[in-house]
Amino acid sequence: MAKVGKISGFPEWLPEQKIAEEMVVGTIKRIYESYGFAPIETPAVELLTTLGSKGVIDKEIFVVQRLKAEESDEAELGLHFDLTVPLARYVAQHAHELSFPFKRYQIQKVWRGDRPQRGRFREFYQFDIDIIARNDLPLSCDAEVVGVVGLVMKALPVGPYTFRINSRKLLSAIYGALGLEGESRAAAIRAVDKILKIGRDGVAKELARIPSISPSTIDSILTSTEIQCSISELAGRVAALKLSDVLIEEGVKDLSTICDLVPAEVASGITIDLSLARGLDYYTGLIVEVSLDNYPEFGTVVAGGRYDNLASEFTDQKLPGVGVSIGLTRLMDLLISERLVSTQRKSPSIALVTVYDENDRPLCNQIAHELRSLEICTEVYFKSPKLGKQIEYAEEKGIRYVLFIDGSSRQIRVKDLHTKEQIEIASIASWASSISKALC
Amino acid sequence: MAKVGKISGFPEWLPEQKIAEEMVVGTIKRIYESYGFAPIETPAVELLTTLGSKGVIDKEIFVVQRLKAEESDEAELGLHFDLTVPLARYVAQHAHELSFPFKRYQIQKVWRGDRPQRGRFREFYQFDIDIIARNDLPLSCDAEVVGVVGLVMKALPVGPYTFRINSRKLLSAIYGALGLEGESRAAAIRAVDKILKIGRDGVAKELARIPSISPSTIDSILTSTEIQCSISELAGRVAALKLSDVLIEEGVKDLSTICDLVPAEVASGITIDLSLARGLDYYTGLIVEVSLDNYPEFGTVVAGGRYDNLASEFTDQKLPGVGVSIGLTRLMDLLISERLVSTQRKSPSIALVTVYDENDRPLCNQIAHELRSLEICTEVYFKSPKLGKQIEYAEEKGIRYVLFIDGSSRQIRVKDLHTKEQIEIASIASWASSISKALC
Repeated sequence: MAKVGKISGFPEWLPEQKIAEEMVVGTIKRIYESYGFAPIETPAVELLTTLGSKGVIDKEIFVVQRLKAEESDEAELGLHFDLTVPLARYVAQHAHELSFPFKRYQIQKVWRGDRPQRGRFREFYQFDIDIIARNDLPLSCDAEVVGVVGLVMKALPVGPYTFRINSRKLLSAIYGALGLEGESRAAAIRAVDKILKIGRDGVAKELARIPSISPSTIDSILTSTEIQCSISELAGRVAALKLSDVLIEEGVKDLSTICDLVPAEVASGITIDLSLARGLDYYTGLIVEVSLDNYPEFGTVVAGGRYDNLASEFTDQKLPGVGVSIGLTRLMDLLISERLVSTQRKSPSIALVTVYDENDRPLCNQIAHELRSLEICTEVYFKSPKLGKQIEYAEEKGIRYVLFIDGSSRQIRVKDLHTKEQIEIASIASWASSISKALC
Repeated sequence: MAKVGKISGFPEWLPEQKIAEEMVVGTIKRIYESYGFAPIETPAVELLTTLGSKGVIDKEIFVVQRLKAEESDEAELGLHFDLTVPLARYVAQHAHELSFPFKRYQIQKVWRGDRPQRGRFREFYQFDIDIIARNDLPLSCDAEVVGVVGLVMKALPVGPYTFRINSRKLLSAIYGALGLEGESRAAAIRAVDKILKIGRDGVAKELARIPSISPSTIDSILTSTEIQCSISELAGRVAALKLSDVLIEEGVKDLSTICDLVPAEVASGITIDLSLARGLDYYTGLIVEVSLDNYPEFGTVVAGGRYDNLASEFTDQKLPGVGVSIGLTRLMDLLISERLVSTQRKSPSIALVTVYDENDRPLCNQIAHELRSLEICTEVYFKSPKLGKQIEYAEEKGIRYVLFIDGSSRQIRVKDLHTKEQIEIASIASWASSISKALC
């Protein structure tokens, strides 16, 4: 007998957990679609040359090969480790077939060969949105992404959260005005990015490693990271740094423009946070992170930003974009383990038609058929044991209504397993309309 | 610049094609869920020992390895090549956490290292349903699977189709009564399975290879394959074979019981076909295949059957099942290339709010917000060029309604790009309710 085991880092849900995941995905999807984001899907694999296009190929990548590959000339393939590289390749490859601005969402598994640990998976879903334009992308798109993320966060059952944004342009301008350029500036951004992990002193140490950086510059950088305020306070707080630079003004203005275009209900919950840096090199403007107040160790739920050129490795066209990613599997892991979503329902069924006698099965099937035509997912019990056993099955699967059919009188009784009430019903249609609200 | 190329055998859709796929998946899913099938999902990978559990590991399998794996003791993993082996492993592993009968659907990609060719992919979606019971599975479950497949076929835009069923039990009993046992009988079933590909003469040649088979047995087998009839004719046609055997009677009776429990609208379209054999060894009762009359070269759209013991490689429990699989990617390839589904919509958006002047953007956003709250997916144009250019964008993306907002008078006009009519609307709510029917 083959050994049945869990493969570490490759999670799988029980039906009730998968149903909960589908509800969460449905909620996020409806919000993204309401803004006109269209679905795309790319293969699980890309050429290794594509995956390595952003620089070194990391040991995180899983390589895919035929077990008994004969042809040595077969392409070298790897499983994608995020949805950004596939998006860049997709947009470059299909640019002539797409309409711009291209607004897409993508819900797919990605694979990373990291050492598995709590909350870290080797296979997990990401849920990404991006808006890609040709040549230039107005700030209205940054605002749209911020707004839609705000609506998603309001819809997720995660409790209070902190929604922080910043601008790489503003950070660069400030660090530039402090005399940091090129690689020194990039190193400073990477150091500040670690502030939540290693603290202010840790960042100070990292900054001190930058060649010819002065203690006063380090101080100024650390002071700037203390700016965590509302958008209305930002200009004043930045002015207090006493660094005059036209690019600093521009960075502040960009963030104001974005916040002005975000729905008021979302904008009021946003913190501008100059300690937010994001590690990846390719961001050039807005950066976004959302974290959960009740679960600080969880890290970010949503993260992303703007990049001036998504697909520069694959095409000469300039394709600026802005987008965010949700780590869906990690989020579901949290929602399920913290019981923030219900996992009561092991089945989409709302009703179970019991079968008292096998001869009644065709009648039971007919009643189930009528229920289904009224959009009530219905099962007919597969055998005809004692009714108690059939009711137990409904209880076990979280099916709320149990129907009892009298084959000779054609009388129908319904038991509501939530209220424990049992009633006789006159017609399926009238009963169905009476419960339809409870199904939503 | 990295080379951007299509990886042969790994298809990917444009947004308008993906939207069409989502509609088809939604249709099938709604039908399966209405019968209480619950979603599950398994990792893309399984242990190679699991994948090889049904016997030899085939060269079809793609192996997955970390690019720079250091630990030699890491588990050997491969991408799953179907959803049946993962289901068997899942049910065995989680048996204590599942409620039986376990009714699940599963929509996932599978990977096979076959040589790519038209209609054959290396990565493709399968859409499976199965009902798994403990110890014994009544024929009501076979009937449910047949019924639900019938409803799916009626809902798919594929034109006329042929829905054939047979019983492995009946075939075995007939071939047994003709004196074939064990491996000879299995070889006869595999030979008959090829009848559509190699014809009657080809099957005769294959049968002749079976050790000590007589010419009259070959004739009788070929005569039995001519039984292609309605369920009501079956008993008479089988009796005409003049093979008396209690197992033959049982096989005929099982098929009758199944057909009696299938909704009349589905049952009337079913052909009992004794030339239908299905190649796989594990079927033990009902077998099912649906093919498309207008696309004979396409092969089967839906195929499956009953197996007495799904998970025998992984557990001592007896877990009989019945289920079918839809080759979703192949089906979508057909629907798209034969234009059987619409691929007009490149976006979920129904409405585009144009922006005449950037100063009007907040007002435009507000109107879009109102539309979205009425479940009308809406985009606001991202810039404010000439209105003609904005209308062009809506046309390109297949967005039907274009709204024009007068920032000072707050007058709203709507152009319907299908009818070319333009009207002034009094309120968003009243207009939205007037179009809601057109959206379904």
